[in-house]
Amino acid sequence: MDERKTKASTWFRTLRDNICKSFEDLEDALTGSEFADQEPGRFEVTPWDRPQENGVDSGGGEMSVMRGRVFEKVGVNISTVYGHFTPEFAKQIPGAEENPEFWASGISLVAHMRSPLVPAVHMNTRHIVTSQSWFGGGADLTPMYVDEDDKKFFHQEFQKTCDKHDPEYYPKFKKWCDEYFFLPHRNEPRGIGGIFYDYLQTPDDSSFKNHFSFTQDVGKCFLNTYRQIVARHMDKQWTQEQREHQLIKRGRYVEFNLIHDRGTLFGLKTNGNVDAILMSMPPEVRWP
Amino acid sequence: MDERKTKASTWFRTLRDNICKSFEDLEDALTGSEFADQEPGRFEVTPWDRPQENGVDSGGGEMSVMRGRVFEKVGVNISTVYGHFTPEFAKQIPGAEENPEFWASGISLVAHMRSPLVPAVHMNTRHIVTSQSWFGGGADLTPMYVDEDDKKFFHQEFQKTCDKHDPEYYPKFKKWCDEYFFLPHRNEPRGIGGIFYDYLQTPDDSSFKNHFSFTQDVGKCFLNTYRQIVARHMDKQWTQEQREHQLIKRGRYVEFNLIHDRGTLFGLKTNGNVDAILMSMPPEVRWP
Repeated sequence: MDERKTKASTWFRTLRDNICKSFEDLEDALTGSEFADQEPGRFEVTPWDRPQENGVDSGGGEMSVMRGRVFEKVGVNISTVYGHFTPEFAKQIPGAEENPEFWASGISLVAHMRSPLVPAVHMNTRHIVTSQSWFGGGADLTPMYVDEDDKKFFHQEFQKTCDKHDPEYYPKFKKWCDEYFFLPHRNEPRGIGGIFYDYLQTPDDSSFKNHFSFTQDVGKCFLNTYRQIVARHMDKQWTQEQREHQLIKRGRYVEFNLIHDRGTLFGLKTNGNVDAILMSMPPEVRWP
Repeated sequence: MDERKTKASTWFRTLRDNICKSFEDLEDALTGSEFADQEPGRFEVTPWDRPQENGVDSGGGEMSVMRGRVFEKVGVNISTVYGHFTPEFAKQIPGAEENPEFWASGISLVAHMRSPLVPAVHMNTRHIVTSQSWFGGGADLTPMYVDEDDKKFFHQEFQKTCDKHDPEYYPKFKKWCDEYFFLPHRNEPRGIGGIFYDYLQTPDDSSFKNHFSFTQDVGKCFLNTYRQIVARHMDKQWTQEQREHQLIKRGRYVEFNLIHDRGTLFGLKTNGNVDAILMSMPPEVRWP
């Protein structure tokens, strides 16, 4: 089990490094847009420790944030935390009611872009160990204006990634994503979706190997597709009207995260690291 | 009972009219500030109907919004709605479990100001009738920079208003306000507080008369104190740094309303009028 935990947490760190490198490369590559004369952004890394449980180390994480000329604000968090769930909380987590001990490692990313022509994006994958163990995660795209080519490309690449592992994955995980990233009070989806999966159980080495491989592929697919989508649009000029539309659309993102997102509420209501959790908030928002 | 309902809903409308008139007068009175050369703002009123319940009228309301040169965005909502609570909901409302029929009338106001030197404010009072009936409400001030004179004045005026009715009100309602308008995840209060009260039961004409009179005084006290606070600061110049601080502080307001405020969540989760409910969102916000 220790070996599996190490493999998973090492991968999340590697993926974080690859993403940050790629995003900095995009910052360097900008030529168009009104921000092209600014310095390319660079990630700043802030480590944090989870408060000790009765004097015992309980893990922590690293927040990486870049405020750049392509990426207006992007946060990439990795964390590996462990300890004991509160009894109330344990009820909601598979395998925790019997034994409240847990271990969780993951990566979580939200990007808000300068250009209203470049979609915002969210990606998160995680490995959780209680008396059970599983992988979960997903990625979804939030364009301010839907580009049909991007949409097709994003969905197709995730379909390929899923199909490589199990033909039942894609339809199931796409639907799950559409259902999850939906604002009932607005009766509108947050974006164009992607995939969302959870509870890919890893009771033995073989299932761990499969689901870990899938989770790695999801991370790679995210980076590959999103990088291309950003590169395709970042040099285009935009109007003030498009920017205004983006700022309003970001309001929906805030509404979703604060009212509905279980990860955000989970974190805030269990004394998680507020800065890391709310790094997903857009840098500038309007409700006119 | 019908007479009481009419008295209450008529008052909320009168108070709305008085507030809107006063706020428009403040718009006219602006002389300083970078927005003084813009046209004074005026309220726009939008009536809305609550969806019928099985073909039966269920009330509605009026949203009044002004986007002005003193008031960046202020929403004043009045509504009188009636019908039946869902069974799940009825459990949370005094006197509704026996009989899900309800009637509710109220006024609700949130103001976000151009100047970071003028506090934001919230006020809400309501009369609710189930198999029981009661008044509730309150007002609280959210300065971006605390002015000790304003703070003292605001609290003192509400204390006078409370003391006129019952010496036990002020300490109880001030504490209730401080406890309610608090962001646990930030471990910080939303603003400097004010008063918050609920369940002032009106089983007979005498108690109705008293609590209605108190509720009217709360509305008048709010208008009188806030008008003076706005007038005292609105002509002052501010810096870009102060504006930035205001936009960040507004983020806390959003966090409170979407994560904690029971009125907002109540409304959003029971298919209330989304535009009216989210009129409380600030026009421009930053999470840098």
